[in-house]
Amino acid sequence: MLEDVRTDLRGLRREFHRCPEPGWREFRTTGRIVDELERIGVDEIAVGRECLATDARMAVPDEEALEPWLERAREAGVGEEILEKTAGGHTGVVAVLERGEGPSVGLRVDMDATAIRESADPGHRPADEGFRSEHEGYMHACGHDAHVAMGIGTLEAVKRTDFEGTFTVFFQPAEEISGGGKAMAEGGYLDGVEYLFAVHLGLDHPTGAIVAGVQKPLAMAHITVTFEGASAHAGKAPNEGANAMQAVATAIQNAYAIPRHADGMTRVNVGSIHGGTASNVIAEEITLECEVRGETTALMEYTRTELERVLYAAAEMHDCDVTPRVISESPSVDSDPALRDLVGEVARTTQCIHEVVETAEFGASEDATYLMERVQDDGGLASYVLVGTDHPTNHQTPTFDVDEESLEIGVGVLTEAILECGHRRL
Amino acid sequence: MLEDVRTDLRGLRREFHRCPEPGWREFRTTGRIVDELERIGVDEIAVGRECLATDARMAVPDEEALEPWLERAREAGVGEEILEKTAGGHTGVVAVLERGEGPSVGLRVDMDATAIRESADPGHRPADEGFRSEHEGYMHACGHDAHVAMGIGTLEAVKRTDFEGTFTVFFQPAEEISGGGKAMAEGGYLDGVEYLFAVHLGLDHPTGAIVAGVQKPLAMAHITVTFEGASAHAGKAPNEGANAMQAVATAIQNAYAIPRHADGMTRVNVGSIHGGTASNVIAEEITLECEVRGETTALMEYTRTELERVLYAAAEMHDCDVTPRVISESPSVDSDPALRDLVGEVARTTQCIHEVVETAEFGASEDATYLMERVQDDGGLASYVLVGTDHPTNHQTPTFDVDEESLEIGVGVLTEAILECGHRRL
Amino acid sequence: MLEDVRTDLRGLRREFHRCPEPGWREFRTTGRIVDELERIGVDEIAVGRECLATDARMAVPDEEALEPWLERAREAGVGEEILEKTAGGHTGVVAVLERGEGPSVGLRVDMDATAIRESADPGHRPADEGFRSEHEGYMHACGHDAHVAMGIGTLEAVKRTDFEGTFTVFFQPAEEISGGGKAMAEGGYLDGVEYLFAVHLGLDHPTGAIVAGVQKPLAMAHITVTFEGASAHAGKAPNEGANAMQAVATAIQNAYAIPRHADGMTRVNVGSIHGGTASNVIAEEITLECEVRGETTALMEYTRTELERVLYAAAEMHDCDVTPRVISESPSVDSDPALRDLVGEVARTTQCIHEVVETAEFGASEDATYLMERVQDDGGLASYVLVGTDHPTNHQTPTFDVDEESLEIGVGVLTEAILECGHRRL
Amino acid sequence: MLEDVRTDLRGLRREFHRCPEPGWREFRTTGRIVDELERIGVDEIAVGRECLATDARMAVPDEEALEPWLERAREAGVGEEILEKTAGGHTGVVAVLERGEGPSVGLRVDMDATAIRESADPGHRPADEGFRSEHEGYMHACGHDAHVAMGIGTLEAVKRTDFEGTFTVFFQPAEEISGGGKAMAEGGYLDGVEYLFAVHLGLDHPTGAIVAGVQKPLAMAHITVTFEGASAHAGKAPNEGANAMQAVATAIQNAYAIPRHADGMTRVNVGSIHGGTASNVIAEEITLECEVRGETTALMEYTRTELERVLYAAAEMHDCDVTPRVISESPSVDSDPALRDLVGEVARTTQCIHEVVETAEFGASEDATYLMERVQDDGGLASYVLVGTDHPTNHQTPTFDVDEESLEIGVGVLTEAILECGHRRL
Repeated sequence: MLEDVRTDLRGLRREFHRCPEPGWREFRTTGRIVDELERIGVDEIAVGRECLATDARMAVPDEEALEPWLERAREAGVGEEILEKTAGGHTGVVAVLERGEGPSVGLRVDMDATAIRESADPGHRPADEGFRSEHEGYMHACGHDAHVAMGIGTLEAVKRTDFEGTFTVFFQPAEEISGGGKAMAEGGYLDGVEYLFAVHLGLDHPTGAIVAGVQKPLAMAHITVTFEGASAHAGKAPNEGANAMQAVATAIQNAYAIPRHADGMTRVNVGSIHGGTASNVIAEEITLECEVRGETTALMEYTRTELERVLYAAAEMHDCDVTPRVISESPSVDSDPALRDLVGEVARTTQCIHEVVETAEFGASEDATYLMERVQDDGGLASYVLVGTDHPTNHQTPTFDVDEESLEIGVGVLTEAILECGHRRL
Repeated sequence: MLEDVRTDLRGLRREFHRCPEPGWREFRTTGRIVDELERIGVDEIAVGRECLATDARMAVPDEEALEPWLERAREAGVGEEILEKTAGGHTGVVAVLERGEGPSVGLRVDMDATAIRESADPGHRPADEGFRSEHEGYMHACGHDAHVAMGIGTLEAVKRTDFEGTFTVFFQPAEEISGGGKAMAEGGYLDGVEYLFAVHLGLDHPTGAIVAGVQKPLAMAHITVTFEGASAHAGKAPNEGANAMQAVATAIQNAYAIPRHADGMTRVNVGSIHGGTASNVIAEEITLECEVRGETTALMEYTRTELERVLYAAAEMHDCDVTPRVISESPSVDSDPALRDLVGEVARTTQCIHEVVETAEFGASEDATYLMERVQDDGGLASYVLVGTDHPTNHQTPTFDVDEESLEIGVGVLTEAILECGHRRL
Repeated sequence: MLEDVRTDLRGLRREFHRCPEPGWREFRTTGRIVDELERIGVDEIAVGRECLATDARMAVPDEEALEPWLERAREAGVGEEILEKTAGGHTGVVAVLERGEGPSVGLRVDMDATAIRESADPGHRPADEGFRSEHEGYMHACGHDAHVAMGIGTLEAVKRTDFEGTFTVFFQPAEEISGGGKAMAEGGYLDGVEYLFAVHLGLDHPTGAIVAGVQKPLAMAHITVTFEGASAHAGKAPNEGANAMQAVATAIQNAYAIPRHADGMTRVNVGSIHGGTASNVIAEEITLECEVRGETTALMEYTRTELERVLYAAAEMHDCDVTPRVISESPSVDSDPALRDLVGEVARTTQCIHEVVETAEFGASEDATYLMERVQDDGGLASYVLVGTDHPTNHQTPTFDVDEESLEIGVGVLTEAILECGHRRL
Repeated sequence: MLEDVRTDLRGLRREFHRCPEPGWREFRTTGRIVDELERIGVDEIAVGRECLATDARMAVPDEEALEPWLERAREAGVGEEILEKTAGGHTGVVAVLERGEGPSVGLRVDMDATAIRESADPGHRPADEGFRSEHEGYMHACGHDAHVAMGIGTLEAVKRTDFEGTFTVFFQPAEEISGGGKAMAEGGYLDGVEYLFAVHLGLDHPTGAIVAGVQKPLAMAHITVTFEGASAHAGKAPNEGANAMQAVATAIQNAYAIPRHADGMTRVNVGSIHGGTASNVIAEEITLECEVRGETTALMEYTRTELERVLYAAAEMHDCDVTPRVISESPSVDSDPALRDLVGEVARTTQCIHEVVETAEFGASEDATYLMERVQDDGGLASYVLVGTDHPTNHQTPTFDVDEESLEIGVGVLTEAILECGHRRL
């Protein structure tokens, strides 16, 4: 079925790999996706603002952080029309294929990179073969370059079949910072989608393996917390300040000690801390970056509520104010068994697939869950599919890479699954 | 001047030493003091309820703790009238000598013992000479036995002089637990007192030394704190309880970290802790015994206020309730320089006194300060006098003892100072 | 098959219910079990010391705590021979039925009560029908009275069948305090056992339900921790002590904050705390009762290792010594699927059983795991079987009771499973 | 006596005020002082390296921080010879006047500015009258500009008298960061000094007041502490990291709770904190800026020792490493009563002085104490003199200013005191 597909999956993946862009700054990536969509020919292309609910975006950087990336995209030849639609942190694309009567099927892929400096060492294939990151300090270290290529490839493949219905591909921005899922879920194009697939490569599954539908992605919230007290001279007037340092120490100790929950796994972390001015001054302002997670959305919310109680009480104890702000979050949503089974059956007959795993725990967070939740709330089915790939080192490390053979496998199994949705009407 | 005094100071002190009674339980001591007062002959004797403001008493033990001591006093021959007046924790005596026109002068001595088991080792004179404590587990380890003897002796000595005016001796109960000072200060007999002396033996000053007036006794509050949470099974439902153990740990850590104060010395301590039921149950109730102190009353109150904020916030952080109850307290009051100077001058001419120290810091707390504060508030003068005594080991140890030669020295210098008040009218 | 059994299961259970005895103090219970075994007739009875590895006992109370229970048993008519064998905390019985060639099958039941005051309210059947606890303050609140009755009943039932092989019943003491399992596992009579069943009533499964084999009992360790510092006067010399109170607060805060583990559930609790003497003294000695648990033995040990690091560092920080002593512990052991399947199949054909659950998580700790582990280590199979019973309130509450209909069900399914072991030789 | 002095004290002070330079970067200030010394004519001028013990310098900024200030001084016309001697953080000057037989007398003034942006508001005299800081972000907010002017003025005044002996003025760099005192004390020129004066303006004493010799400057140590743990993914592997965040929280809580000391005042502060990378990563490295102080050097060292114990134990508790580095420190040294009395007597007869205070507590730290300590250790006398000045707002605030009338007063009283040293030979 893939024989007619003209998309150069490997070349396309390498091109995206060379130009990694972090969340809400995927201006160039957006432009290149649009180019490919126009090449293939689809019925509708919605770019940036056209496919996002602006107010539902989270973790959007400020203009100063966005601007250089927009400028770089402009210099790389991205057209003004695209830049206008995506400016101010509105990256992302939705492509729609209308093929008559039939089910509405969706595929969601993500497209952002992370702030990791890619290895230049020999033995790291992108370095050896000339497609190492050209945006120094940033890298596609989680395979989203490959996800974009697979999204484009699957679109072309579906187009070349006798699929009847509507097929929509969601190129979602800002997954790494859990910023884009909600905005795309509420952007309008998900309405009416009856079957939704999300896809991820690797995660310790080898080339030739498929996980038909993952479960238990962790619900997550990333929270920035600022304590504000009052400074004073630590030698002359230690009693006059309101010591943010003491408030913060109390908060951290008690945050990690939030009771474990009978219903399942929770997590809490204070990952960074910055504040105070000098050794002889009572600290006035300190900022923490925190996160809470849970095996279910309820467990995450339990942990968040407890964290907030800890924060407010610690501030009060030291006469400080505290402001926790949720930067981004995502719920926990399981794959539907029925759609998972469909993927499993299709995978068992797909070329090059040696191992089909019914389900696996995700073990991390993903904001594709916003899209899955919305489809399920409207009565549809969703499954988060893992396509195995041999990766030499862990995700999010400077020597991460994927086995490009898995690109065709992914396009193959997704295309078959999408077609099967039409045949079966679960 | 003391040649006519018939009080056997040493014998009397040894008799009191043999029968130590703790705070609010000095039933037998009260009875014996009354005997001596009747022997000497005074114009008014007020016993127990008659000389105390009942509601101002602090740290009164419950009836169960009082009863055995009352019974023991009854068996020792204390009369029913005395027992009636002192029952329920109303120990103490005030004796008044009316000697015509002249100033109203007061002397305050304390009379309670502490819960220390007295040494029975050879070399400890009370053991060697047969006047070791007969109330096993209790001991006059701070010299209050000697204070009572000096109070009685001074009363007789003053009576035998040409003193003109009113002289009142306050035999105050429950000093060790800061329980009796306030009640005696408000009991009525302090009204109109223009000059007040309080006296203490030793405190590292040798026989023959006098400190004319101490300063900076520490203001103090003893606070009992109970945290109440909710228990739950620590294995099956760790999230369901409200963990008093975590609240308490947070409170203790932050209590000791209450900021030092620019204006002077503060102290905070959590001295005992008891609560919880079993290793596998979230602790529901825990009780702490705490104290705060300060070089001034304001500094003690600063520390108490901060402690309370810590306690309430720690409870709130862990969804618990907390109840701090002030068991007893005492202010910080300095000796008046004018009265201190009078004592110093008198001391310089008193037999057997080799060293006169103008003032010294007290370094601990004392509820005589309630009486001193009231006299000062009414325009009078007060001085807290130390009478040196060679003591073999520290106060509040099982081998504490006093040099009985200091009893006469104390009576001598106090009597002269009292007479001088009449002569001078400061 | 049960028609010939003469054991009055309900009467026996009620008799044990009336006389609850806590761990290592089941002198009377031991005596009564021996009476029944003699009535039924078995090939070997091992009592107390005869069936326990003395040094492997844990959480044995001191003589003072044991003595009154021994005396009470003596007064209730337990023979001197039994008392001699069980004195000093050596309760428990093993009964062996030798029936020729065939497999060696074991059944373990526990026999101790808990320190809960049983409800006397109307509506609580033991109160209404006259078999409420006669040992005020103690109660069979976890159904071990019924377990003992089922153990005796099953023994008689098996005897009356054509069972060929060896059948051993382990009446294990001190389960509630995790004290007896290890000693009985190493007592000799478990050697050679090829199939071991342990049994528990209820745990939220209704009458008529059977769980064929539970998994994931929590590994557990109960640890008593004593901090020793040095006392000092909190007002005069706050810097001179070594403050056990501060060490303990630091330890507690960090104990609850031991990192959650990627591999699964852990628990930590500090359940009780006692120490210090007075508000004005730096605390010298404080004792904590702690526990750690884990979904696997490795997870429990991870948590224990981390707890110990926290304890030692907290002590060092405040110049104190710390001594953690493991009072008792138990591993996590899963039921073998093969034996679990056998129970499931048997249960499906057993009268009065409406629901057969293959497996369930245990959610708490159990020291039957010591016996199960030993059997498995020797190549045998073990399954921990739950026999449903309608219980009006939760285990370990004053109004706990069992539905006595479940006694026959339990004896029935266990007897069938034991016979089946002989038939099948898994 | 001052009538012949040609130094324009006010003009000079304003010139220094316009060009504030922070510690170890006083290149231009050094150059200008040398100009004035050459104008006046002295017997020896030692610059930078010539008057400092290089290895005893503390808190020296790195080359990158020094360079721009050196360059700015070069542009302002400071000669290459001076720049060479002071490069690399070797600012400061010593000037010696040899006047025959007689005592060796020293005067120490400091010369550095602080990182405060000076007010440009009307009403702030330096802004109104055109001598506001030209080094934006830096300011002479503690009067060291005036100290330098007084040092130069006093030198000229002494030269014009009949003073016999040796007079040395120490223009000490880097006082604000306690960096320069030790290096100048050990630089050689203090050897043989028998009488040393240090001087400071203001500190809440008004124009016309003199404090003859302060006592109890706080001993101080500024310590930078780095905790190093190991990072891990907070969601997937919370147990794998070594959490520097938890170590730091434990350290901070316990640092503030270091016991108060019986012997006097102590201080501890954690003033700034920076570390960690992201909300979802276990923090690997965190750095704290801390300080400890004490009323005596021993009390500061007690606090530092306790702080170090807290730090090491907190690190060990969380499997981290910790490195505390002392950035700078200074001892506590009291003024000698004899020299203090001399200043007092001289001041009473000095024009324009209305109030002479014998002594006052300093309440802060000062590294002039290194020079005072060395002189005292060699048998000499030292006094730290306060010259009152009306200052509109507190030291170290953007609107700080001095009353320039106090410049002449200061030069007057210092000159008289220096002469008197010769006359009296204490």
